[in-house]
Amino acid sequence: MVNVAILGFGVVGSGVAEVLTGNGAGISKKADELISLKYVLDVRDFPDSPFAACFVKDFSVIEQDPEVNVVVETIGGVGAALDFTERALKAGKSVVTSNKELVATHGRRLLELAAEHQAVYLFEASVGGGIPILRPLSECMAANDILEICGILNGTANYIFTRMVQDGIPFAQALKGAQANGYAEQNPAADVEGQDTCRKLCILSSIAFGWHLLPEQVPTTGITSITLADEAYADACQRRIKLLGRAIAREDGTVCAYVEPHFISLQNPLAGVDDVFNAILVKGDATGDVMFYGRGAGKLPTASAVVADVIAAARQLERASYRPWQPNRPSSVVSSDQLASQWYVRLAEGTCSGERLTISGGKEGESGWITPAMTRPQLDQMLEGKQVLAVIRVLD
Amino acid sequence: MVNVAILGFGVVGSGVAEVLTGNGAGISKKADELISLKYVLDVRDFPDSPFAACFVKDFSVIEQDPEVNVVVETIGGVGAALDFTERALKAGKSVVTSNKELVATHGRRLLELAAEHQAVYLFEASVGGGIPILRPLSECMAANDILEICGILNGTANYIFTRMVQDGIPFAQALKGAQANGYAEQNPAADVEGQDTCRKLCILSSIAFGWHLLPEQVPTTGITSITLADEAYADACQRRIKLLGRAIAREDGTVCAYVEPHFISLQNPLAGVDDVFNAILVKGDATGDVMFYGRGAGKLPTASAVVADVIAAARQLERASYRPWQPNRPSSVVSSDQLASQWYVRLAEGTCSGERLTISGGKEGESGWITPAMTRPQLDQMLEGKQVLAVIRVLD
Repeated sequence: MVNVAILGFGVVGSGVAEVLTGNGAGISKKADELISLKYVLDVRDFPDSPFAACFVKDFSVIEQDPEVNVVVETIGGVGAALDFTERALKAGKSVVTSNKELVATHGRRLLELAAEHQAVYLFEASVGGGIPILRPLSECMAANDILEICGILNGTANYIFTRMVQDGIPFAQALKGAQANGYAEQNPAADVEGQDTCRKLCILSSIAFGWHLLPEQVPTTGITSITLADEAYADACQRRIKLLGRAIAREDGTVCAYVEPHFISLQNPLAGVDDVFNAILVKGDATGDVMFYGRGAGKLPTASAVVADVIAAARQLERASYRPWQPNRPSSVVSSDQLASQWYVRLAEGTCSGERLTISGGKEGESGWITPAMTRPQLDQMLEGKQVLAVIRVLD
Repeated sequence: MVNVAILGFGVVGSGVAEVLTGNGAGISKKADELISLKYVLDVRDFPDSPFAACFVKDFSVIEQDPEVNVVVETIGGVGAALDFTERALKAGKSVVTSNKELVATHGRRLLELAAEHQAVYLFEASVGGGIPILRPLSECMAANDILEICGILNGTANYIFTRMVQDGIPFAQALKGAQANGYAEQNPAADVEGQDTCRKLCILSSIAFGWHLLPEQVPTTGITSITLADEAYADACQRRIKLLGRAIAREDGTVCAYVEPHFISLQNPLAGVDDVFNAILVKGDATGDVMFYGRGAGKLPTASAVVADVIAAARQLERASYRPWQPNRPSSVVSSDQLASQWYVRLAEGTCSGERLTISGGKEGESGWITPAMTRPQLDQMLEGKQVLAVIRVLD
């Protein structure tokens, strides 16, 4: 018998309760044991919830109940979530989470703590919502050296781009639409400024390369400055604008990781990933390119990924864990300034070396360009003194 | 210490030996134990192979060596491969394979045999080559009821379609090119007549639904009759021809499974899967559509999937297994004749109800049509007495 406690009864937490109990029989069969929801921790009251009997307000009830084997942390953030996760692991309980901020920031120590206490710490739902990615990367691709990870990791940003292109509406309006549809938070900063993508990239990179990459080491540019003119120029050169998180393993053992919008060519399988869908491209030295695609967020997709981890924890408590992450290696992180690529450049006036793009209805004097391959410092030198309106990296 | 024996030193077997030894240090670290290649079984001699010291010709050497924990079966077929797999499992050794014919035909019994002898039987490489699919489907999507599996599962067939469309060459010539490039066997029947897709679909379906679907229960149509005219009509209606294996769970608990070429719309994420790439779309009741994409065949991709299973077997011998498959359920398999859809029809002359397609350079009198949605028996009735040149199911 496996008893589960859910911390936080928000969107994901309530989804986990529903999936755990709604599909209960099937889930228990798959777990080879009976899985039962024992507690839900929340400061608020939910007198009408079907789980009303499970609610508690004091974490120590869960911490001190030896019958609780698996704790689901869906509080979010790095405050109470960190405290409760540490205490649960120290009490020998396994913890499953969708909290990307906590994993990206404290994952290494929490994995270590889990191992010390014969528990597991699992977080498949923290990247890509319901898309299976962390376990496939960690287990199924274990015979590969991972060469690169490149992903559309934020559904809100991708939805905004899709609306801009398909409906011809500017960024601000597309963002409002995303909020109205429930795809973006009222405070959308983490989505549109790239931090959400950055955290997910750190988790992927740490699993792929085996040492903890920290968010503050990843230069991150969001999408707030992208205009309809940029989308028109992208269209003019058969490309799409996508916000990508990339982590590239270099031959010297260093990793170049960054988050930026990109012009990507229509031949790239990521170009066709629209709306709130996410996709993660993984290059292995043996398998070549493998891509994982699906809804990157949403109550039920995310909850089902959490519950799959609960089942894994229930089936094989000591063996389901990710391999431990080695400590962060400051000297192994290299700047994306060293990564040469072509660039899209939009100028207020004047010219630039490279291929000139033409669009209909462009602003008087403005021009769009695709430069030859060079690094960002070389580009900045070339553009010195020019009135630069936009610079976006090109990826074929 | 985990000692591995490889059965069959063909393309995949020699690739496994390379991946196991070439990336050896990394692999042993991931397995938390030292993994070592002890034997290679082959009837042929390979005096110049770097693994020459490992070769044996008599399986009983492997069977009787208690140091061998994991046997890799890459012989293929259901003759010696079945015999050796049974004997290895009965000796308590775990078996890892890429042999889709053996798994599709005897998977249930071999999983049972493995469980009886505290061994595991793993076959990630049997579907999708290096694409992680069976473990994600079995574990990461465990909290879902699977509603449908729909996949481009044969790289050779997909390569042929891509060449027909992109180079404008007929089927026979595209097949010859595939053979010249090593993408098709000299006897390409299993690829172009659909059996290979059928076997992979049976494995996916058995894992998704939990009972053994057998190849002889799956109506299978290959691609040998597809012409350039059909490709032109597909293009005329914004669709692509792809050979799909589909298994659809119906509300009454039955499964409709079949293999056929389809006209699929360009909006379908499978439409952009070209060349030798494979992709598998899985619909879960909670996650929605999830897609797995990558190279479906090839020496190193397949070998790396085999080696990942060897690592899984080494890490967690008793827990890495797939859940057992229930016996086949003849009454749970329903004919694709019950599945209504639109149809593409090409007639030698005359007309048909539906939307007429126009192509340039079509044959005098011939016409292409997209019919309203109906079942195949209804379609056949409608077409009675007409000179029908082609019928292909439409999937949007």
